[in-house]
Amino acid sequence: MLEAPPPPIAVSLGDPAGIGPEVIAKCWDNRAEFGLPTFVAVGDPRALEAVWDGPVEIVTDMNESERVFDHGLPLLQLAAASADNPGHPSIAGAHCSLDCLELAVGLARSGSAAAVVTGPVSKEQLYEIGFQHPGQTEFVAERCGVSPGNVAMMLAGPTLRTVPVTTHVPLAKVPEVLTTALIESRGRAALRGLQRNFGIPEPRLAVSGFNPHSGEGGRLGREELDVIEPAIAALRAEGWRVSGPHPADTMFHTRARATYDAALCMYHDQALIPIKAVHFEEAVNVTLGLPIIRTAPDHGTAYDIAGQDKSDPRPFAAAIRMAAHCAQFRAEAA
Amino acid sequence: MLEAPPPPIAVSLGDPAGIGPEVIAKCWDNRAEFGLPTFVAVGDPRALEAVWDGPVEIVTDMNESERVFDHGLPLLQLAAASADNPGHPSIAGAHCSLDCLELAVGLARSGSAAAVVTGPVSKEQLYEIGFQHPGQTEFVAERCGVSPGNVAMMLAGPTLRTVPVTTHVPLAKVPEVLTTALIESRGRAALRGLQRNFGIPEPRLAVSGFNPHSGEGGRLGREELDVIEPAIAALRAEGWRVSGPHPADTMFHTRARATYDAALCMYHDQALIPIKAVHFEEAVNVTLGLPIIRTAPDHGTAYDIAGQDKSDPRPFAAAIRMAAHCAQFRAEAA
Repeated sequence: MLEAPPPPIAVSLGDPAGIGPEVIAKCWDNRAEFGLPTFVAVGDPRALEAVWDGPVEIVTDMNESERVFDHGLPLLQLAAASADNPGHPSIAGAHCSLDCLELAVGLARSGSAAAVVTGPVSKEQLYEIGFQHPGQTEFVAERCGVSPGNVAMMLAGPTLRTVPVTTHVPLAKVPEVLTTALIESRGRAALRGLQRNFGIPEPRLAVSGFNPHSGEGGRLGREELDVIEPAIAALRAEGWRVSGPHPADTMFHTRARATYDAALCMYHDQALIPIKAVHFEEAVNVTLGLPIIRTAPDHGTAYDIAGQDKSDPRPFAAAIRMAAHCAQFRAEAA
Repeated sequence: MLEAPPPPIAVSLGDPAGIGPEVIAKCWDNRAEFGLPTFVAVGDPRALEAVWDGPVEIVTDMNESERVFDHGLPLLQLAAASADNPGHPSIAGAHCSLDCLELAVGLARSGSAAAVVTGPVSKEQLYEIGFQHPGQTEFVAERCGVSPGNVAMMLAGPTLRTVPVTTHVPLAKVPEVLTTALIESRGRAALRGLQRNFGIPEPRLAVSGFNPHSGEGGRLGREELDVIEPAIAALRAEGWRVSGPHPADTMFHTRARATYDAALCMYHDQALIPIKAVHFEEAVNVTLGLPIIRTAPDHGTAYDIAGQDKSDPRPFAAAIRMAAHCAQFRAEAA
């Protein structure tokens, strides 16, 4: 039982030229309808002012946010920041998006924030300023001192959670990248994440095959026999509840989804096609394997619609709610 | 306007040891609830008697079926046939499943049947008796004098239709098999099939990418640039409405599905994951590019549950209804 209220959730605004500031402001506007806990935006207030007329409450300490949240969107200001025009990315905006991400992660690591929800950034822009990571996930992992191989990206919706073993790899290269060790480490991160972030004491992991019909015993490919089955056996030997390899096309219908807590998928689209087909507006990206809780909406900067009031805030609201649920499970377990 | 009633639909019983006879009998039992038109089973009456106590009406001419359909399940008997015990496949059963498939196709080719719905067969059993085709689809194509490359398998449900360009190919081999010419011919079969079988005068085809994020302009794979885009350009040059290549993960949510009439997918699971996630009990396999109409449920023989009254007849009923709809579109266009 906690006596003090839990710390607030830190929300990085992301690229000031993208839809991040706009959807975050809309989340505050609709905080009651969306059922959102107290959260604090981290970034440049001008990025909000450019797209929103609502009240911003500048805070200098996370503890102030609870008191001001009813009156305005609490914002922790970056020391040096320069906002962009919506829809017009720039180098300054890339620096700003990285600075607010780093500050939000620091707040979570120090315990001042219960979790981090990250606004969308542009990898193309970040590469221009020397960013070396495939995405925000790997950057956050590095800042937390965790090897990227031990981190897993989970897409979580109300009736389905999927975890891709490989992500941004050309599909023809996946057979080279897909190793028994990688499936094992992602599977372990998924299972531990289900315990720690979702409060499931004995999680069930369903592992997909790689080939049509899961290879039909080798006739339609050998990845199941040579690579996937040994990983399943190793995880089972550690005591985990792991099934598969399952033919991927029969894993994701309503009845099948009820038989496991997460599906471990071999490549990007195998994990993302079903979650987006079933839970497009509600799927949340949860990074597993970190000492902190980090979630994100599963959309990008959407420069083409930024500043036009066309963005849908529901995915970001789902990411904030998910972060709060995961923080609660961790607090209860602690 | 047709004056005479349309011919009945021919239904091959499939492997007598599988669930085909059982689901077909259940379809007749529930013909009113399922909204089914007159259909005639083609096969060995003993396969039905082994799993069903209902009335069978042996017919010798398809024209008799309309008259008897209210009293019993019409059955056109094979000249020489030998049924199996449910759940116990045999060589005789394999011969039987092939014979009833061939007879049903002949009935449709001659115009005695409006369409063919094929019961599930076992490829493993058929290979034992010298069957040379990857599946029933290719066998039916050959019997109709159509090259397999010009035929396409469509999975059709109430809000989504998908067509895989490649099917039972190990995923690592798909980049070798996937050619611009094959995408074009499958795309053309899909578009013509939407016109002929679904009565859509100007069909919209959405073509998927192959790699994550549809290759991100070559950074995550070149199949989109080198193979898929030229096929799209060629189909457009013929006047077809074709879009893509689209990132596969954002093609299948509710709003996206409403923007096209069929999705052309590059590999088996890319087409089958979304259709089964969204329409598991209602997805029907429709063969496009044939002079006849052929549909099938998207399930196999399910030997493990045959004869135990556990089978779900709804997929077979959906296949019969779909065959009737397609036959009606063709009759109206003729």
